[in-house]
Amino acid sequence: MIQTDTLLNNYKILQDPERFMFGIDAVLLSNFSRQALNHNEKLFDLCTGNGIVPLLLCDFVNKIDAIEIQKDSADLAVKSVQINALEQKIAVTNGDLKNISTEKLFEKHSYNCVTCNPPYMINEHGRQNETDAKTIARHEICCTLDDVVAAADFLLHTHGKFFMIHRPFRLPEIFAVLKKYSFEPKRMQLVYPFIDKEPNLVLIEARKNASPRLKIEKPLFVYDKPGLYTKEINDIYDSFRNQRN
Amino acid sequence: MIQTDTLLNNYKILQDPERFMFGIDAVLLSNFSRQALNHNEKLFDLCTGNGIVPLLLCDFVNKIDAIEIQKDSADLAVKSVQINALEQKIAVTNGDLKNISTEKLFEKHSYNCVTCNPPYMINEHGRQNETDAKTIARHEICCTLDDVVAAADFLLHTHGKFFMIHRPFRLPEIFAVLKKYSFEPKRMQLVYPFIDKEPNLVLIEARKNASPRLKIEKPLFVYDKPGLYTKEINDIYDSFRNQRN
Repeated sequence: MIQTDTLLNNYKILQDPERFMFGIDAVLLSNFSRQALNHNEKLFDLCTGNGIVPLLLCDFVNKIDAIEIQKDSADLAVKSVQINALEQKIAVTNGDLKNISTEKLFEKHSYNCVTCNPPYMINEHGRQNETDAKTIARHEICCTLDDVVAAADFLLHTHGKFFMIHRPFRLPEIFAVLKKYSFEPKRMQLVYPFIDKEPNLVLIEARKNASPRLKIEKPLFVYDKPGLYTKEINDIYDSFRNQRN
Repeated sequence: MIQTDTLLNNYKILQDPERFMFGIDAVLLSNFSRQALNHNEKLFDLCTGNGIVPLLLCDFVNKIDAIEIQKDSADLAVKSVQINALEQKIAVTNGDLKNISTEKLFEKHSYNCVTCNPPYMINEHGRQNETDAKTIARHEICCTLDDVVAAADFLLHTHGKFFMIHRPFRLPEIFAVLKKYSFEPKRMQLVYPFIDKEPNLVLIEARKNASPRLKIEKPLFVYDKPGLYTKEINDIYDSFRNQRN
């Protein structure tokens, strides 16, 4: 049963609880990316799902293209764009990011920024049903980390910015794949669920052909207590609200 | 003027305020390493300075060899070992770690663990006097990160453990050099001076030829207020004290 939710910036988003609902990951990625975006820039969102990142970031850039491999999710994203009358700003394609370079679906080196909230889990870890929509969104079934970075490499211009959220346990591999495609990690933030717990998310900004020097941001804590967001997380949600009003 | 200080574990250490005095880095590296050491293991400490890491770790392993390129610092380390009657446990060599593999100063692949608190700064950053003892300890004048990891690779056996403390801004390079020598980062902790500040140190445990999966520890905070250590830092200092008594 499709439901219509109102985002903090007052845009509407269509979601299907049977499929993948957007979570805090998309909000954190949008917030982390937003700090480095300019209003005249062109952004591409890989693995866009139901289009949450384009909807959260469309007020901060000039134009957004996005791709999603699952037809039902891509259809929802297209409808959300229509409901918000954002067709001039956001274009969602149902397609496979592995074909971006080979089929030249989009113009090479023509974007300033690429965002991606990719499947986190490598195939071996706890994969169950390969055709299930949630499994495809979470596991590297349809694309690998290498595929994602290769697509970003194709899309971005020489000093383009690539923003990704991922799992900390894959950090060495993430850096290695970025390096393979001449991306240099320039900014990173670890997201700790609680002040005394291991981080479960990492935010990364990489730039193509940049000089090496990584800025690691102050830690980001999600909860003060179970179920109770920290002031910082509430401020992030509020900042999207304030931007639109 | 050489001074004799008493360490938390009641060993004595000779230090020269004109040269490099050990700081919290050595204590954090020792604490981080100690968690993964066994009493029957053989450890090697690279860039040992005045021997602080061997003195802090000698109760946790069977035997420690160490190397220091600066003669005056190595002499102090040797004297500290003598004062504590630890000659059977710790052997400090004045030498260049770059010659470890070529001159076969030590037996290849014969150590279980290697520790290193290397010079943090790359040559271009704020280097002043290349012959100054403190500058040599802080800047990559006598050895590079690559030299350090190459030495660890020579010394360690197949699944040997390598522990290092370094600056977070060099993390991508650190991972790349580790990978070059077939080390896999397995455990990491970021050290934040304050809860709302960027980290200024990173602790890394890498293992030779291990499978990829990095555990990032909970954040480590150094100060509650300027000059006032957190409980966790005080606990680390206390834990060395309690071990010996």
